[in-house]
Amino acid sequence: MNLRVRFAETDQMGVAHHGAYVVWFEAARVEWMRERGLSYRELEASGLSMAVKEVTIRYRKAAYFDDLLRIDCAMTELRSRHAAFRYRLTGPGGRTVADGHTTHVPTDRSGRAVRLPAVWAEALVGHVEPMPDRPSGDAA
Amino acid sequence: MNLRVRFAETDQMGVAHHGAYVVWFEAARVEWMRERGLSYRELEASGLSMAVKEVTIRYRKAAYFDDLLRIDCAMTELRSRHAAFRYRLTGPGGRTVADGHTTHVPTDRSGRAVRLPAVWAEALVGHVEPMPDRPSGDAA
Amino acid sequence: MNLRVRFAETDQMGVAHHGAYVVWFEAARVEWMRERGLSYRELEASGLSMAVKEVTIRYRKAAYFDDLLRIDCAMTELRSRHAAFRYRLTGPGGRTVADGHTTHVPTDRSGRAVRLPAVWAEALVGHVEPMPDRPSGDAA
Amino acid sequence: MNLRVRFAETDQMGVAHHGAYVVWFEAARVEWMRERGLSYRELEASGLSMAVKEVTIRYRKAAYFDDLLRIDCAMTELRSRHAAFRYRLTGPGGRTVADGHTTHVPTDRSGRAVRLPAVWAEALVGHVEPMPDRPSGDAA
Repeated sequence: MNLRVRFAETDQMGVAHHGAYVVWFEAARVEWMRERGLSYRELEASGLSMAVKEVTIRYRKAAYFDDLLRIDCAMTELRSRHAAFRYRLTGPGGRTVADGHTTHVPTDRSGRAVRLPAVWAEALVGHVEPMPDRPSGDAA
Repeated sequence: MNLRVRFAETDQMGVAHHGAYVVWFEAARVEWMRERGLSYRELEASGLSMAVKEVTIRYRKAAYFDDLLRIDCAMTELRSRHAAFRYRLTGPGGRTVADGHTTHVPTDRSGRAVRLPAVWAEALVGHVEPMPDRPSGDAA
Repeated sequence: MNLRVRFAETDQMGVAHHGAYVVWFEAARVEWMRERGLSYRELEASGLSMAVKEVTIRYRKAAYFDDLLRIDCAMTELRSRHAAFRYRLTGPGGRTVADGHTTHVPTDRSGRAVRLPAVWAEALVGHVEPMPDRPSGDAA
Repeated sequence: MNLRVRFAETDQMGVAHHGAYVVWFEAARVEWMRERGLSYRELEASGLSMAVKEVTIRYRKAAYFDDLLRIDCAMTELRSRHAAFRYRLTGPGGRTVADGHTTHVPTDRSGRAVRLPAVWAEALVGHVEPMPDRPSGDAA
Protein backbone atom coordinates (compact mmCIF):
# COMPACT_ATOMS: atom_id res chain seq x y z
CA MET A 1 0.00 0.00 0.00
CA ASN A 2 0.98 3.63 -0.37
CA LEU A 3 0.45 6.40 2.17
CA ARG A 4 1.30 10.04 2.58
CA VAL A 5 3.14 11.26 5.67
CA ARG A 6 0.67 13.48 7.50
CA PHE A 7 1.70 16.79 9.03
CA ALA A 8 0.46 15.56 12.42
CA GLU A 9 2.89 12.64 12.10
CA THR A 10 5.95 14.92 12.02
CA ASP A 11 7.84 16.02 15.11
CA GLN A 12 10.08 18.96 15.89
CA MET A 13 13.07 17.19 14.31
CA GLY A 14 11.25 17.86 11.04
CA VAL A 15 10.72 14.19 10.21
CA ALA A 16 7.98 11.61 10.66
CA HIS A 17 7.94 10.58 14.31
CA HIS A 18 9.16 7.03 14.87
CA GLY A 19 5.88 6.13 16.57
CA ALA A 20 3.93 6.70 13.35
CA TYR A 21 5.61 3.68 11.74
CA VAL A 22 3.80 1.31 14.11
CA VAL A 23 0.49 2.71 12.89
CA TRP A 24 1.59 2.43 9.25
CA PHE A 25 2.60 -1.20 9.70
CA GLU A 26 -0.83 -1.91 11.14
CA ALA A 27 -2.54 -0.18 8.22
CA ALA A 28 -0.39 -2.25 5.86
CA ARG A 29 -1.57 -5.50 7.50
CA VAL A 30 -5.18 -4.47 6.99
CA GLU A 31 -4.55 -3.68 3.31
CA TRP A 32 -2.54 -6.88 2.90
CA MET A 33 -5.66 -8.81 3.93
CA ARG A 34 -7.96 -6.74 1.73
CA GLU A 35 -5.73 -7.36 -1.32
CA ARG A 36 -6.22 -11.10 -0.66
CA GLY A 37 -10.00 -10.83 -0.45
CA LEU A 38 -10.01 -10.97 3.34
CA SER A 39 -11.24 -8.41 5.82
CA TYR A 40 -9.64 -7.59 9.14
CA ARG A 41 -12.87 -5.80 9.95
CA GLU A 42 -14.82 -9.04 9.58
CA LEU A 43 -12.21 -10.90 11.58
CA GLU A 44 -12.73 -8.35 14.39
CA ALA A 45 -16.52 -8.51 13.98
CA SER A 46 -16.34 -12.29 14.47
CA GLY A 47 -14.87 -11.69 17.92
CA LEU A 48 -11.27 -12.43 17.00
CA SER A 49 -8.25 -10.14 17.15
CA MET A 50 -4.67 -10.62 16.08
CA ALA A 51 -3.11 -9.07 19.17
CA VAL A 52 0.40 -7.73 18.72
CA LYS A 53 3.00 -9.59 20.80
CA GLU A 54 6.16 -8.01 19.46
CA VAL A 55 7.16 -5.12 17.25
CA THR A 56 10.65 -4.44 15.92
CA ILE A 57 11.39 -1.49 13.65
CA ARG A 58 14.75 -0.46 12.19
CA TYR A 59 14.81 3.14 11.01
CA ARG A 60 17.10 3.55 7.96
CA LYS A 61 16.37 6.96 6.45
CA ALA A 62 14.04 9.68 7.63
CA ALA A 63 10.58 10.11 6.14
CA TYR A 64 9.34 13.65 5.62
CA PHE A 65 6.01 15.42 5.63
CA ASP A 66 4.05 14.72 2.44
CA ASP A 67 6.39 11.94 1.31
CA LEU A 68 4.53 9.22 -0.54
CA LEU A 69 5.69 5.97 1.05
CA ARG A 70 5.21 2.42 -0.14
CA ILE A 71 4.83 -0.37 2.40
CA ASP A 72 5.54 -3.93 1.33
CA CYS A 73 4.16 -6.40 3.78
CA ALA A 74 4.28 -10.19 3.93
CA MET A 75 2.95 -12.80 6.32
CA THR A 76 5.99 -14.94 7.02
CA GLU A 77 4.57 -17.44 9.52
CA LEU A 78 1.17 -18.80 10.47
CA ARG A 79 0.46 -21.32 13.18
CA SER A 80 -2.67 -21.92 15.23
CA ARG A 81 -1.50 -19.53 17.96
CA HIS A 82 1.05 -17.40 16.18
CA ALA A 83 1.47 -15.26 13.10
CA ALA A 84 4.36 -13.09 11.92
CA PHE A 85 4.60 -10.27 9.41
CA ARG A 86 7.53 -8.47 7.84
CA TYR A 87 7.51 -4.95 6.43
CA ARG A 88 9.62 -2.71 4.26
CA LEU A 89 8.91 0.97 3.97
CA THR A 90 10.22 2.64 0.81
CA GLY A 91 10.36 6.39 0.26
CA PRO A 92 10.70 8.66 -2.77
CA GLY A 93 13.55 7.62 -5.04
CA GLY A 94 13.39 4.06 -3.78
CA ARG A 95 15.30 4.63 -0.55
CA THR A 96 14.53 2.14 2.22
CA VAL A 97 13.05 4.18 5.03
CA ALA A 98 12.54 1.36 7.51
CA ASP A 99 11.97 -2.32 7.87
CA GLY A 100 10.63 -4.41 10.69
CA HIS A 101 8.46 -7.25 11.80
CA THR A 102 5.58 -8.00 14.12
CA THR A 103 4.32 -11.15 15.77
CA HIS A 104 0.71 -11.78 16.74
CA VAL A 105 -1.44 -14.13 18.72
CA PRO A 106 -5.13 -14.75 18.04
CA THR A 107 -7.25 -13.57 20.98
CA ASP A 108 -10.93 -13.58 21.80
CA ARG A 109 -13.01 -10.60 22.92
CA SER A 110 -11.77 -10.93 26.50
CA GLY A 111 -8.17 -10.78 25.31
CA ARG A 112 -7.46 -14.45 25.99
CA ALA A 113 -5.17 -16.28 23.56
CA VAL A 114 -7.11 -18.74 21.42
CA ARG A 115 -6.46 -21.07 18.52
CA LEU A 116 -7.02 -19.43 15.18
CA PRO A 117 -10.47 -20.61 14.02
CA ALA A 118 -10.31 -23.02 11.09
CA VAL A 119 -12.16 -20.68 8.76
CA TRP A 120 -9.50 -18.01 9.21
CA ALA A 121 -6.60 -20.45 9.24
CA GLU A 122 -7.73 -21.85 5.89
CA ALA A 123 -8.25 -18.43 4.42
CA LEU A 124 -4.82 -17.22 5.50
CA VAL A 125 -2.51 -20.21 5.19
CA GLY A 126 -2.10 -20.03 1.44
CA HIS A 127 -0.73 -16.52 1.76
CA VAL A 128 2.33 -17.31 3.84
CA GLU A 129 5.25 -15.99 1.82
CA PRO A 130 8.74 -14.72 2.18
CA MET A 131 9.39 -11.00 2.05
CA PRO A 132 9.26 -9.62 -1.50
CA ASP A 133 12.67 -9.23 -3.10
CA ARG A 134 14.34 -5.90 -2.57
CA PRO A 135 13.80 -3.45 -5.37
CA SER A 136 16.92 -3.17 -7.47
CA GLY A 137 19.11 -0.21 -6.59
CA ASP A 138 18.27 -0.50 -2.93
CA ALA A 139 21.56 -0.37 -1.10
CA ALA A 140 20.37 -0.76 2.48
CA MET B 1 -4.36 18.76 36.21
CA ASN B 2 -0.81 19.27 34.97
CA LEU B 3 0.83 17.57 32.03
CA ARG B 4 4.10 17.69 30.12
CA VAL B 5 4.13 18.21 26.39
CA ARG B 6 5.51 14.97 24.94
CA PHE B 7 8.05 14.95 22.12
CA ALA B 8 5.66 12.86 20.03
CA GLU B 9 3.09 15.64 20.40
CA THR B 10 5.28 18.20 18.62
CA ASP B 11 5.22 18.77 14.87
CA GLN B 12 7.70 20.20 12.40
CA MET B 13 6.66 23.76 13.29
CA GLY B 14 8.45 23.06 16.58
CA VAL B 15 5.31 23.35 18.71
CA ALA B 16 2.72 21.01 20.17
CA HIS B 17 0.45 19.90 17.34
CA HIS B 18 -3.06 21.34 17.59
CA GLY B 19 -4.56 17.86 17.60
CA ALA B 20 -2.90 17.03 20.93
CA TYR B 21 -5.10 19.55 22.72
CA VAL B 22 -8.19 17.42 22.10
CA VAL B 23 -6.48 14.53 23.89
CA TRP B 24 -5.41 16.81 26.75
CA PHE B 25 -8.95 18.11 27.22
CA GLU B 26 -10.19 14.53 27.44
CA ALA B 27 -7.52 13.66 30.02
CA ALA B 28 -8.58 16.74 31.99
CA ARG B 29 -12.22 15.55 32.07
CA VAL B 30 -11.11 12.21 33.47
CA GLU B 31 -9.03 13.92 36.19
CA TRP B 32 -11.86 16.36 36.88
CA MET B 33 -14.05 13.38 37.76
CA ARG B 34 -11.35 11.69 39.82
CA GLU B 35 -10.81 14.86 41.87
CA ARG B 36 -14.53 14.71 42.74
CA GLY B 37 -14.42 11.09 43.83
CA LEU B 38 -15.91 9.84 40.56
CA SER B 39 -14.45 7.51 38.00
CA TYR B 40 -14.85 7.77 34.25
CA ARG B 41 -13.50 4.25 34.11
CA GLU B 42 -16.43 3.01 36.22
CA LEU B 43 -18.86 5.02 34.14
CA GLU B 44 -17.51 3.25 31.03
CA ALA B 45 -17.54 -0.12 32.81
CA SER B 46 -21.24 0.40 33.57
CA GLY B 47 -21.89 0.56 29.82
CA LEU B 48 -22.23 4.33 29.61
CA SER B 49 -20.11 6.77 27.61
CA MET B 50 -20.14 10.54 27.42
CA ALA B 51 -19.77 10.75 23.64
CA VAL B 52 -18.33 13.99 22.33
CA LYS B 53 -20.77 15.98 20.20
CA GLU B 54 -18.78 19.16 19.69
CA VAL B 55 -15.28 20.42 20.30
CA THR B 56 -14.11 24.01 19.97
CA ILE B 57 -10.54 25.04 20.68
CA ARG B 58 -9.03 28.51 20.41
CA TYR B 59 -5.25 28.47 20.21
CA ARG B 60 -3.71 31.55 21.92
CA LYS B 61 0.00 30.89 22.35
CA ALA B 62 2.09 27.93 21.27
CA ALA B 63 2.99 25.15 23.69
CA TYR B 64 6.45 23.67 23.38
CA PHE B 65 8.06 20.30 23.99
CA ASP B 66 8.54 19.64 27.70
CA ASP B 67 6.37 22.59 28.77
CA LEU B 68 4.50 21.87 31.96
CA LEU B 69 0.90 22.87 31.25
CA ARG B 70 -1.99 23.32 33.65
CA ILE B 71 -5.51 22.51 32.47
CA ASP B 72 -8.43 24.03 34.35
CA CYS B 73 -11.64 22.26 33.53
CA ALA B 74 -15.22 22.86 34.62
CA MET B 75 -18.54 21.19 33.89
CA THR B 76 -20.73 24.09 32.92
CA GLU B 77 -24.00 22.28 32.08
CA LEU B 78 -25.66 19.00 32.94
CA ARG B 79 -29.00 17.77 31.68
CA SER B 80 -30.32 14.27 31.20
CA ARG B 81 -29.08 14.13 27.61
CA HIS B 82 -26.40 16.80 27.52
CA ALA B 83 -23.28 17.90 29.34
CA ALA B 84 -20.83 20.70 28.61
CA PHE B 85 -17.28 21.35 29.78
CA ARG B 86 -15.00 24.36 29.48
CA TYR B 87 -11.21 24.31 29.53
CA ARG B 88 -8.31 26.69 29.91
CA LEU B 89 -4.78 25.61 29.22
CA THR B 90 -2.07 27.63 30.94
CA GLY B 91 1.62 27.44 30.12
CA PRO B 92 4.85 28.43 31.87
CA GLY B 93 4.74 31.99 33.18
CA GLY B 94 0.96 31.93 33.31
CA ARG B 95 0.35 32.55 29.62
CA THR B 96 -2.99 31.28 28.31
CA VAL B 97 -2.11 28.66 25.71
CA ALA B 98 -5.65 27.77 24.68
CA ASP B 99 -9.23 27.63 25.80
CA GLY B 100 -12.18 25.72 24.54
CA HIS B 101 -15.28 23.74 25.27
CA THR B 102 -16.84 20.39 24.56
CA THR B 103 -20.40 19.09 24.62
CA HIS B 104 -21.38 15.51 25.29
CA VAL B 105 -24.31 13.16 25.11
CA PRO B 106 -24.69 10.02 27.24
CA THR B 107 -24.68 6.92 25.06
CA ASP B 108 -25.02 3.21 25.68
CA ARG B 109 -22.66 0.48 24.45
CA SER B 110 -24.25 0.49 21.00
CA GLY B 111 -23.65 4.24 20.69
CA ARG B 112 -27.30 5.19 21.08
CA ALA B 113 -28.11 8.39 22.96
CA VAL B 114 -29.66 7.63 26.35
CA ARG B 115 -30.79 9.54 29.43
CA LEU B 116 -28.04 9.87 31.99
CA PRO B 117 -28.77 7.21 34.62
CA ALA B 118 -29.96 8.66 37.94
CA VAL B 119 -26.95 7.40 39.86
CA TRP B 120 -24.59 9.35 37.61
CA ALA B 121 -26.86 12.39 37.37
CA GLU B 122 -26.96 12.65 41.15
CA ALA B 123 -23.23 12.16 41.46
CA LEU B 124 -22.46 14.84 38.90
CA VAL B 125 -25.11 17.52 39.34
CA GLY B 126 -23.58 19.12 42.40
CA HIS B 127 -20.40 19.79 40.44
CA VAL B 128 -21.87 22.04 37.78
CA GLU B 129 -19.89 25.25 38.07
CA PRO B 130 -18.81 28.20 36.07
CA MET B 131 -15.29 28.33 34.73
CA PRO B 132 -12.77 29.16 37.47
CA ASP B 133 -11.80 32.81 37.57
CA ARG B 134 -8.82 33.70 35.44
CA PRO B 135 -5.60 33.72 37.37
CA SER B 136 -4.46 37.29 37.99
CA GLY B 137 -1.88 38.47 35.51
CA ASP B 138 -3.53 36.56 32.70
CA ALA B 139 -3.78 39.05 29.90
CA ALA B 140 -5.53 36.94 27.27
CA MET C 1 -10.13 13.31 -0.45
CA ASN C 2 -10.93 9.83 0.80
CA LEU C 3 -9.36 8.06 3.75
CA ARG C 4 -9.75 4.82 5.65
CA VAL C 5 -10.30 4.84 9.40
CA ARG C 6 -7.19 3.20 10.86
CA PHE C 7 -7.39 0.68 13.67
CA ALA C 8 -5.11 2.90 15.76
CA GLU C 9 -7.68 5.68 15.38
CA THR C 10 -10.41 3.72 17.16
CA ASP C 11 -10.99 3.85 20.90
CA GLN C 12 -12.63 1.50 23.38
CA MET C 13 -16.08 2.82 22.48
CA GLY C 14 -15.51 0.97 19.20
CA VAL C 15 -15.54 4.11 17.05
CA ALA C 16 -13.00 6.49 15.59
CA HIS C 17 -11.72 8.68 18.41
CA HIS C 18 -12.88 12.29 18.15
CA GLY C 19 -9.28 13.51 18.16
CA ALA C 20 -8.58 11.77 14.84
CA TYR C 21 -10.91 14.15 13.04
CA VAL C 22 -8.54 17.07 13.65
CA VAL C 23 -5.79 15.14 11.87
CA TRP C 24 -8.14 14.25 9.00
CA PHE C 25 -9.15 17.88 8.52
CA GLU C 26 -5.49 18.80 8.31
CA ALA C 27 -4.82 16.07 5.74
CA ALA C 28 -7.80 17.37 3.76
CA ARG C 29 -6.33 20.91 3.68
CA VAL C 30 -3.08 19.53 2.29
CA GLU C 31 -4.94 17.59 -0.43
CA TRP C 32 -7.15 20.59 -1.14
CA MET C 33 -4.00 22.54 -2.01
CA ARG C 34 -2.52 19.71 -4.07
CA GLU C 35 -5.73 19.42 -6.11
CA ARG C 36 -5.27 23.11 -6.97
CA GLY C 37 -1.67 22.70 -8.06
CA LEU C 38 -0.30 24.10 -4.81
CA SER C 39 1.90 22.45 -2.24
CA TYR C 40 1.66 22.90 1.51
CA ARG C 41 5.06 21.27 1.66
CA GLU C 42 6.53 24.07 -0.45
CA LEU C 43 4.71 26.66 1.61
CA GLU C 44 6.36 25.19 4.72
CA ALA C 45 9.73 24.95 2.96
CA SER C 46 9.51 28.67 2.18
CA GLY C 47 9.40 29.37 5.92
CA LEU C 48 5.67 29.98 6.14
CA SER C 49 3.06 28.08 8.12
CA MET C 50 -0.71 28.40 8.31
CA ALA C 51 -0.95 28.07 12.09
CA VAL C 52 -4.30 26.91 13.39
CA LYS C 53 -6.10 29.51 15.52
CA GLU C 54 -9.41 27.78 16.03
CA VAL C 55 -10.95 24.39 15.43
CA THR C 56 -14.62 23.52 15.74
CA ILE C 57 -15.94 20.04 15.03
CA ARG C 58 -19.52 18.80 15.31
CA TYR C 59 -19.79 15.03 15.49
CA ARG C 60 -22.98 13.74 13.79
CA LYS C 61 -22.62 9.99 13.37
CA ALA C 62 -19.85 7.68 14.47
CA ALA C 63 -17.14 6.55 12.08
CA TYR C 64 -15.95 2.97 12.38
CA PHE C 65 -12.72 1.10 11.78
CA ASP C 66 -12.08 0.57 8.06
CA ASP C 67 -14.84 2.95 6.99
CA LEU C 68 -13.95 4.75 3.80
CA LEU C 69 -14.66 8.42 4.51
CA ARG C 70 -14.87 11.33 2.10
CA ILE C 71 -13.78 14.78 3.26
CA ASP C 72 -15.05 17.80 1.38
CA CYS C 73 -13.05 20.86 2.19
CA ALA C 74 -13.35 24.48 1.10
CA MET C 75 -11.41 27.65 1.81
CA THR C 76 -14.14 30.09 2.79
CA GLU C 77 -12.09 33.19 3.62
CA LEU C 78 -8.66 34.57 2.76
CA ARG C 79 -7.18 37.80 4.03
CA SER C 80 -3.57 38.85 4.50
CA ARG C 81 -3.53 37.60 8.09
CA HIS C 82 -6.42 35.16 8.17
CA ALA C 83 -7.78 32.13 6.37
CA ALA C 84 -10.75 29.91 7.10
CA PHE C 85 -11.69 26.42 5.94
CA ARG C 86 -14.88 24.38 6.23
CA TYR C 87 -15.14 20.60 6.18
CA ARG C 88 -17.73 17.90 5.80
CA LEU C 89 -16.94 14.30 6.52
CA THR C 90 -19.18 11.75 4.81
CA GLY C 91 -19.29 8.06 5.63
CA PRO C 92 -20.53 4.93 3.88
CA GLY C 93 -24.06 5.32 2.57
CA GLY C 94 -23.69 9.08 2.42
CA ARG C 95 -24.27 9.75 6.10
CA THR C 96 -22.72 12.98 7.41
CA VAL C 97 -20.21 11.92 10.02
CA ALA C 98 -19.05 15.37 11.05
CA ASP C 99 -18.62 18.92 9.91
CA GLY C 100 -16.48 21.72 11.18
CA HIS C 101 -14.25 24.65 10.44
CA THR C 102 -10.78 25.94 11.16
CA THR C 103 -9.20 29.37 11.10
CA HIS C 104 -5.55 30.05 10.44
CA VAL C 105 -2.98 32.78 10.60
CA PRO C 106 0.17 32.90 8.48
CA THR C 107 3.27 32.66 10.68
CA ASP C 108 7.00 32.69 10.06
CA ARG C 109 9.52 30.13 11.30
CA SER C 110 9.63 31.73 14.74
CA GLY C 111 5.85 31.42 15.05
CA ARG C 112 5.19 35.15 14.67
CA ALA C 113 2.08 36.20 12.76
CA VAL C 114 2.98 37.67 9.37
CA ARG C 115 1.17 38.92 6.30
CA LEU C 116 0.60 36.22 3.73
CA PRO C 117 3.33 36.72 1.08
CA ALA C 118 1.98 38.02 -2.23
CA VAL C 119 3.00 34.90 -4.14
CA TRP C 120 0.87 32.72 -1.90
CA ALA C 121 -1.98 35.22 -1.65
CA GLU C 122 -2.22 35.32 -5.44
CA ALA C 123 -2.04 31.57 -5.75
CA LEU C 124 -4.77 31.03 -3.19
CA VAL C 125 -7.22 33.88 -3.63
CA GLY C 126 -8.93 32.47 -6.68
CA HIS C 127 -9.85 29.37 -4.73
CA VAL C 128 -12.01 31.01 -2.08
CA GLU C 129 -15.35 29.29 -2.39
CA PRO C 130 -18.44 28.45 -0.42
CA MET C 131 -18.87 24.94 0.93
CA PRO C 132 -19.81 22.43 -1.79
CA ASP C 133 -23.51 21.67 -1.94
CA ARG C 134 -24.63 18.75 0.14
CA PRO C 135 -24.80 15.51 -1.76
CA SER C 136 -28.40 14.56 -2.44
CA GLY C 137 -29.81 12.06 0.00
CA ASP C 138 -27.88 13.60 2.86
CA ALA C 139 -30.42 14.05 5.62
CA ALA C 140 -28.24 15.71 8.26
CA MET D 1 8.11 7.59 35.83
CA ASN D 2 4.38 6.90 36.19
CA LEU D 3 1.70 7.64 33.65
CA ARG D 4 -2.02 7.09 33.21
CA VAL D 5 -3.36 5.34 30.12
CA ARG D 6 -5.37 7.99 28.28
CA PHE D 7 -8.75 7.22 26.73
CA ALA D 8 -7.41 8.33 23.35
CA GLU D 9 -4.71 5.68 23.68
CA THR D 10 -7.22 2.81 23.77
CA ASP D 11 -8.45 1.00 20.68
CA GLN D 12 -11.57 -1.01 19.89
CA MET D 13 -10.05 -4.12 21.49
CA GLY D 14 -10.58 -2.23 24.76
CA VAL D 15 -6.88 -2.00 25.59
CA ALA D 16 -4.10 0.53 25.15
CA HIS D 17 -3.05 0.46 21.50
CA HIS D 18 0.39 -1.03 20.95
CA GLY D 19 1.57 2.16 19.24
CA ALA D 20 1.16 4.16 22.46
CA TYR D 21 4.01 2.25 24.08
CA VAL D 22 6.53 3.86 21.71
CA VAL D 23 5.40 7.27 22.92
CA TRP D 24 5.58 6.16 26.56
CA PHE D 25 9.11 4.86 26.13
CA GLU D 26 10.10 8.22 24.68
CA ALA D 27 8.50 10.08 27.59
CA ALA D 28 10.40 7.77 29.95
CA ARG D 29 13.73 8.68 28.32
CA VAL D 30 13.00 12.37 28.82
CA GLU D 31 12.14 11.81 32.50
CA TRP D 32 15.18 9.57 32.92
CA MET D 33 17.34 12.51 31.88
CA ARG D 34 15.45 14.98 34.09
CA GLU D 35 15.90 12.72 37.13
CA ARG D 36 19.66 12.91 36.49
CA GLY D 37 19.71 16.70 36.28
CA LEU D 38 19.85 16.67 32.47
CA SER D 39 17.41 18.09 29.98
CA TYR D 40 16.47 16.56 26.67
CA ARG D 41 14.94 19.91 25.85
CA GLU D 42 18.34 21.60 26.22
CA LEU D 43 19.98 18.85 24.22
CA GLU D 44 17.50 19.56 21.40
CA ALA D 45 17.95 23.32 21.81
CA SER D 46 21.71 22.85 21.34
CA GLY D 47 21.00 21.41 17.87
CA LEU D 48 21.46 17.77 18.82
CA SER D 49 18.92 14.94 18.68
CA MET D 50 19.11 11.32 19.75
CA ALA D 51 17.43 9.89 16.67
CA VAL D 52 15.83 6.50 17.13
CA LYS D 53 17.47 3.74 15.05
CA GLU D 54 15.65 0.72 16.40
CA VAL D 55 12.68 -0.04 18.60
CA THR D 56 11.71 -3.45 19.94
CA ILE D 57 8.71 -3.95 22.19
CA ARG D 58 7.42 -7.21 23.64
CA TYR D 59 3.83 -6.99 24.84
CA ARG D 60 3.20 -9.21 27.88
CA LYS D 61 -0.14 -8.21 29.39
CA ALA D 62 -2.65 -5.66 28.21
CA ALA D 63 -2.82 -2.17 29.70
CA TYR D 64 -6.24 -0.65 30.19
CA PHE D 65 -7.73 2.82 30.16
CA ASP D 66 -6.89 4.72 33.34
CA ASP D 67 -4.31 2.17 34.49
CA LEU D 68 -1.46 3.80 36.34
CA LEU D 69 1.69 2.39 34.76
CA ARG D 70 5.27 2.59 35.97
CA ILE D 71 8.08 2.72 33.42
CA ASP D 72 11.56 1.74 34.52
CA CYS D 73 14.15 2.91 32.05
CA ALA D 74 17.91 2.49 31.93
CA MET D 75 20.63 3.61 29.53
CA THR D 76 22.51 0.39 28.87
CA GLU D 77 25.13 1.61 26.37
CA LEU D 78 26.77 4.88 25.41
CA ARG D 79 29.34 5.38 22.71
CA SER D 80 30.20 8.42 20.63
CA ARG D 81 27.75 7.44 17.90
CA HIS D 82 25.39 5.07 19.69
CA ALA D 83 23.21 4.86 22.77
CA ALA D 84 20.82 2.15 23.94
CA PHE D 85 17.99 2.15 26.46
CA ARG D 86 15.96 -0.65 28.01
CA TYR D 87 12.45 -0.34 29.43
CA ARG D 88 10.05 -2.25 31.58
CA LEU D 89 6.44 -1.24 31.89
CA THR D 90 4.64 -2.40 35.02
CA GLY D 91 0.90 -2.25 35.58
CA PRO D 92 -1.40 -2.38 38.59
CA GLY D 93 -0.60 -5.29 40.88
CA GLY D 94 2.96 -5.43 39.63
CA ARG D 95 2.26 -7.30 36.40
CA THR D 96 4.81 -6.75 33.62
CA VAL D 97 2.90 -5.12 30.80
CA ALA D 98 5.76 -4.84 28.34
CA ASP D 99 9.48 -4.56 27.99
CA GLY D 100 11.66 -3.40 25.18
CA HIS D 101 14.67 -1.47 24.06
CA THR D 102 15.65 1.32 21.74
CA THR D 103 18.91 2.34 20.09
CA HIS D 104 19.82 5.87 19.12
CA VAL D 105 22.35 7.82 17.13
CA PRO D 106 23.26 11.46 17.80
CA THR D 107 22.27 13.65 14.85
CA ASP D 108 22.59 17.32 14.02
CA ARG D 109 19.79 19.63 12.88
CA SER D 110 20.03 18.35 9.32
CA GLY D 111 19.59 14.77 10.51
CA ARG D 112 23.20 13.75 9.85
CA ALA D 113 24.81 11.33 12.29
CA VAL D 114 27.42 13.08 14.43
CA ARG D 115 29.67 12.25 17.35
CA LEU D 116 28.06 12.97 20.68
CA PRO D 117 29.54 16.31 21.83
CA ALA D 118 31.93 15.97 24.77
CA VAL D 119 29.73 18.01 27.09
CA TRP D 120 26.84 15.58 26.64
CA ALA D 121 29.04 12.49 26.62
CA GLU D 122 30.53 13.51 29.98
CA ALA D 123 27.14 14.33 31.43
CA LEU D 124 25.68 10.99 30.37
CA VAL D 125 28.47 8.45 30.68
CA GLY D 126 28.24 8.05 34.44
CA HIS D 127 24.63 7.00 34.10
CA VAL D 128 25.16 3.87 32.02
CA GLU D 129 23.64 1.08 34.06
CA PRO D 130 22.11 -2.33 33.71
CA MET D 131 18.35 -2.69 33.82
CA PRO D 132 16.97 -2.49 37.38
CA ASP D 133 16.35 -5.89 38.93
CA ARG D 134 12.89 -7.30 38.36
CA PRO D 135 10.50 -6.60 41.18
CA SER D 136 9.93 -9.72 43.24
CA GLY D 137 6.79 -11.60 42.37
CA ASP D 138 7.15 -10.73 38.71
CA ALA D 139 6.58 -13.97 36.88
CA ALA D 140 7.11 -12.78 33.32
